[in-house]
Amino acid sequence: MPRFIFKNVEFEDVKSLSQTLSVKSAEIIDCPIDWITFEHVSNTIFLEGNDITSSMLFLEVSWFKRSQEVQDQLATYLNSTLNKYFNEEKEITIIFHTLEEANYYEEGQNFL
Amino acid sequence: MPRFIFKNVEFEDVKSLSQTLSVKSAEIIDCPIDWITFEHVSNTIFLEGNDITSSMLFLEVSWFKRSQEVQDQLATYLNSTLNKYFNEEKEITIIFHTLEEANYYEEGQNFL
Amino acid sequence: MPRFIFKNVEFEDVKSLSQTLSVKSAEIIDCPIDWITFEHVSNTIFLEGNDITSSMLFLEVSWFKRSQEVQDQLATYLNSTLNKYFNEEKEITIIFHTLEEANYYEEGQNFL
Repeated sequence: MPRFIFKNVEFEDVKSLSQTLSVKSAEIIDCPIDWITFEHVSNTIFLEGNDITSSMLFLEVSWFKRSQEVQDQLATYLNSTLNKYFNEEKEITIIFHTLEEANYYEEGQNFL
Repeated sequence: MPRFIFKNVEFEDVKSLSQTLSVKSAEIIDCPIDWITFEHVSNTIFLEGNDITSSMLFLEVSWFKRSQEVQDQLATYLNSTLNKYFNEEKEITIIFHTLEEANYYEEGQNFL
Repeated sequence: MPRFIFKNVEFEDVKSLSQTLSVKSAEIIDCPIDWITFEHVSNTIFLEGNDITSSMLFLEVSWFKRSQEVQDQLATYLNSTLNKYFNEEKEITIIFHTLEEANYYEEGQNFL
């Protein structure tokens, strides 16, 4: 945690982004670099019968609550870096999912 | 947004449903048709060692909060249309996930 | 429901675990065994350019709210059983997602 979950982004791009994005993201979040995992989930997006997967990018960030300021700063950084990486060819959506400490367990122990 | 995320439904069926369901759904939601994206996520479902993927359908709707009335109306429409499409051969579950405007960013800007 | 959604676990392992885990989980949750579905979602996890998928396990439990005590007990059971199953070779994270009855529909009817 945090987890950066990429949907409809190629496998190799997620691998590459896990290097490109990690240092600065960790700095903004104020956490160790190796806390941030990058996940590739295979999906396809359709709009009225047309496959528009390549024109969109969904990044879902799953983490414990940070301040709105930190979140805004991270979204701004991720958006601009992803825009550069993909030559502004993708519509970028970033969604933050807040996890409750009481519902999150590592090795059987929750984070309360 | 809204996103209609289909799990354990064939790729070609999601593509087809993105045409079948879009007009009436947009009417119920009261949004432009091209706001609704249809996503295919590959998954498999097991029950006690048996693959029951083909007998179940999960549709997860990710959107900003609408009234319970609109949500009920949409669920009723989606359920009946999906039942017809699949000849009543699938157990249909529809789950609505509410997103907070503060946690949703397009092009780096949140929706507050 | 409940749904046990496994990410970065092999297909055959999820199939096998749907037998291994179902009886005792149903006992802890106090629900019929056949209410619990086991899902395989294909994903890959990277850490700074390295594929670490095989060393991590994410289990996301999607259900209606139970007491913290029941949840803790289930997490403890799942963690220890998964540890045994995988010979302690995986870092195990279990995340509980609470669904609202008003947002969950089977056959077009919500659970309010």
